[in-house]
Amino acid sequence: MEPLNYNRLAGKNLGRLEALSDGIFAVAMTLLVLDLKTPVASAIHSESDLWNALLSLSPRLMTYLMSFVTLGIFWLGQQAQLNLLEKSNRDVVWLHIGLLASVCLIPFSTALLAEFLQYRAALLVYWANILLLGLLLLASWRAARHFGIVKPDLPPDIDRAIYRRIIVAQCLYGLGAALCVFSTSWSIGAIVLLQLNYALAPRIGKFELP
Amino acid sequence: MEPLNYNRLAGKNLGRLEALSDGIFAVAMTLLVLDLKTPVASAIHSESDLWNALLSLSPRLMTYLMSFVTLGIFWLGQQAQLNLLEKSNRDVVWLHIGLLASVCLIPFSTALLAEFLQYRAALLVYWANILLLGLLLLASWRAARHFGIVKPDLPPDIDRAIYRRIIVAQCLYGLGAALCVFSTSWSIGAIVLLQLNYALAPRIGKFELP
Amino acid sequence: MEPLNYNRLAGKNLGRLEALSDGIFAVAMTLLVLDLKTPVASAIHSESDLWNALLSLSPRLMTYLMSFVTLGIFWLGQQAQLNLLEKSNRDVVWLHIGLLASVCLIPFSTALLAEFLQYRAALLVYWANILLLGLLLLASWRAARHFGIVKPDLPPDIDRAIYRRIIVAQCLYGLGAALCVFSTSWSIGAIVLLQLNYALAPRIGKFELP
Amino acid sequence: MEPLNYNRLAGKNLGRLEALSDGIFAVAMTLLVLDLKTPVASAIHSESDLWNALLSLSPRLMTYLMSFVTLGIFWLGQQAQLNLLEKSNRDVVWLHIGLLASVCLIPFSTALLAEFLQYRAALLVYWANILLLGLLLLASWRAARHFGIVKPDLPPDIDRAIYRRIIVAQCLYGLGAALCVFSTSWSIGAIVLLQLNYALAPRIGKFELP
Repeated sequence: MEPLNYNRLAGKNLGRLEALSDGIFAVAMTLLVLDLKTPVASAIHSESDLWNALLSLSPRLMTYLMSFVTLGIFWLGQQAQLNLLEKSNRDVVWLHIGLLASVCLIPFSTALLAEFLQYRAALLVYWANILLLGLLLLASWRAARHFGIVKPDLPPDIDRAIYRRIIVAQCLYGLGAALCVFSTSWSIGAIVLLQLNYALAPRIGKFELP
Repeated sequence: MEPLNYNRLAGKNLGRLEALSDGIFAVAMTLLVLDLKTPVASAIHSESDLWNALLSLSPRLMTYLMSFVTLGIFWLGQQAQLNLLEKSNRDVVWLHIGLLASVCLIPFSTALLAEFLQYRAALLVYWANILLLGLLLLASWRAARHFGIVKPDLPPDIDRAIYRRIIVAQCLYGLGAALCVFSTSWSIGAIVLLQLNYALAPRIGKFELP
Repeated sequence: MEPLNYNRLAGKNLGRLEALSDGIFAVAMTLLVLDLKTPVASAIHSESDLWNALLSLSPRLMTYLMSFVTLGIFWLGQQAQLNLLEKSNRDVVWLHIGLLASVCLIPFSTALLAEFLQYRAALLVYWANILLLGLLLLASWRAARHFGIVKPDLPPDIDRAIYRRIIVAQCLYGLGAALCVFSTSWSIGAIVLLQLNYALAPRIGKFELP
Repeated sequence: MEPLNYNRLAGKNLGRLEALSDGIFAVAMTLLVLDLKTPVASAIHSESDLWNALLSLSPRLMTYLMSFVTLGIFWLGQQAQLNLLEKSNRDVVWLHIGLLASVCLIPFSTALLAEFLQYRAALLVYWANILLLGLLLLASWRAARHFGIVKPDLPPDIDRAIYRRIIVAQCLYGLGAALCVFSTSWSIGAIVLLQLNYALAPRIGKFELP
């Protein structure tokens, strides 16, 4: 009899990977709001002071929503891919743990971008974080294919659909980030438009992403 | 054969939407308590100092409970609606992600209201947050109807029940908020009473809300 | 035909109440650790400085563990009771939302107690929080009985077992809290011993609690 | 008839223990990122200032990833063991609650290590935390065996596989920690290498751990 390999026991439970993922996405999405800080009471003496202080929060509200949508996009993408798996295995689970570690970095990248909206460094860190999410999502699908743990009845062109979606999206994100050569505002505008396309108008464009 | 559209793969899993929702509601509800800060040790020299410091926390305890109940009401409403769906789809999922983004804003709106109880601006932001929750809940039901993903055996007057509930509740919230023309205290009192009606005495009134 | 009452739709899903509860218990338990703050770097100049700083954290480590065990006890109690239900309903759900609101207060009560270990006010707030948890657990069982939503095949003496457990435990907690007339240290010692009895040695005593 | 013992009702639900565990692991993993603080805006006057500030965060990024992998390793280990159980019981649940309390300490140990990388005290606390995780995982398996709640069809050498894995891993962690006699950097390097072996290259070594 083949000696028992502990690794054959680990990471089998697809349900618990989904539960851990949902938990981490949920906490990361909620932590984003901690970046929206209430105005300091001692600086507020009238209604108009408070309205002005709230207005000055609007860039942070924008980065909050942008990152919430980012995490929503990747949550949908991960969900779509996990739905195609028949079971899980240790290697695929570790790639997903890597994906989740990148998800947890999004609140940091977002706070950095919100604090340093004019700085290319902040924008590039944010973009690198999105790139990492895309690469790990791609790698986890390749690994699932490699280990043959996908469902048996998948449509034949599923790989092309998944690869094209991730690659096209990442190219667009990359183009958006490259606009920071001119101005970080252009980059952020492009990324927001790209995300609106995915979230709000999925039937307009042909190029949609997880 | 119709070419494979990635969107047909995304957002199908109703169970994971529920898990993400429960996670986000749970974190948002728990974050509310971070607004209750322990008194500063250096200012406390006797038991009565501490009792007084605790008493001065009571407005924040009230806003904590008010927002906890708000989130409870909308958690129940979302749960009731998701229970009526047979499956999910991408568009409905995005409306629910929007709902969850509004849920995550509640800890911010609550902290703002607790810090600036006398300011109409704080009250209106809080009310706008509740309005957003109501609108997105309504929109997600309309979308579910539009895409025909509800369960087949629903009672015939279910739409009217859902619409009436959301609209009546939002009208009452709106009336409560409008009372801030006179005083923000009246508004808060009206909102608290409205919520007690939903949570504690659902059989007294005829107008109940999700 | 009876007109459709929205309340008959709400709160039916026992699984989602369990998921929300697990989420809130999980976040509340994890937030407890935020009270353990790392020593300030500028005050540490040697290994022995750091050891001393860590030693001075031990009262907070104790309150951390005490509250973690408290939440563990009530998580087990809530789980045991929900397992006995056949379905859920709106009123029972609201009692559980009340229970969860009290669960979320535990990180606050714990931080208060850790900061003001010598103050009876802090101890009484902590005890009141535990009392509230017990009362709401009791009320939710009574409500479940009242609405007849428990499983049909329960053993006949189940009510007595549940009531006795909660009441005996709360009496012991109350006695422990009353010791603060002499010293808050006695109270805390008594509560810790009581909890060890439930967690570590459930077969020694006869009086065990949810 | 045997009088009803409340303890026979508590802790039966394996699904809820898994849900609580996934929640706590998810929150603890996400809290790790709070240690990555954005640079202070007033100190940043140019792109190169920001790049330098980001570079100076790299030790904290390393401890972040190290602890994320640690938690991933133990999440996988706990999952593998719970998968082997047929049901749960109160005593096993309490050992897992102890495990989860140790999981929640990891963000504290990590922050301590990140702040005091050169101090043996910080390293030993971190190692003690990992040791505690290993001991409780071991104890929970022994308890499950003792109470006979494992699945009936387990392979005969499963115990040896589980024990060897935990013990070998803990010996390697212990050796790594012992290197702090020479330098804490050596210890951290050894722990990182050990974890990479588990996460990235499970097929290279023979000695792998949960």
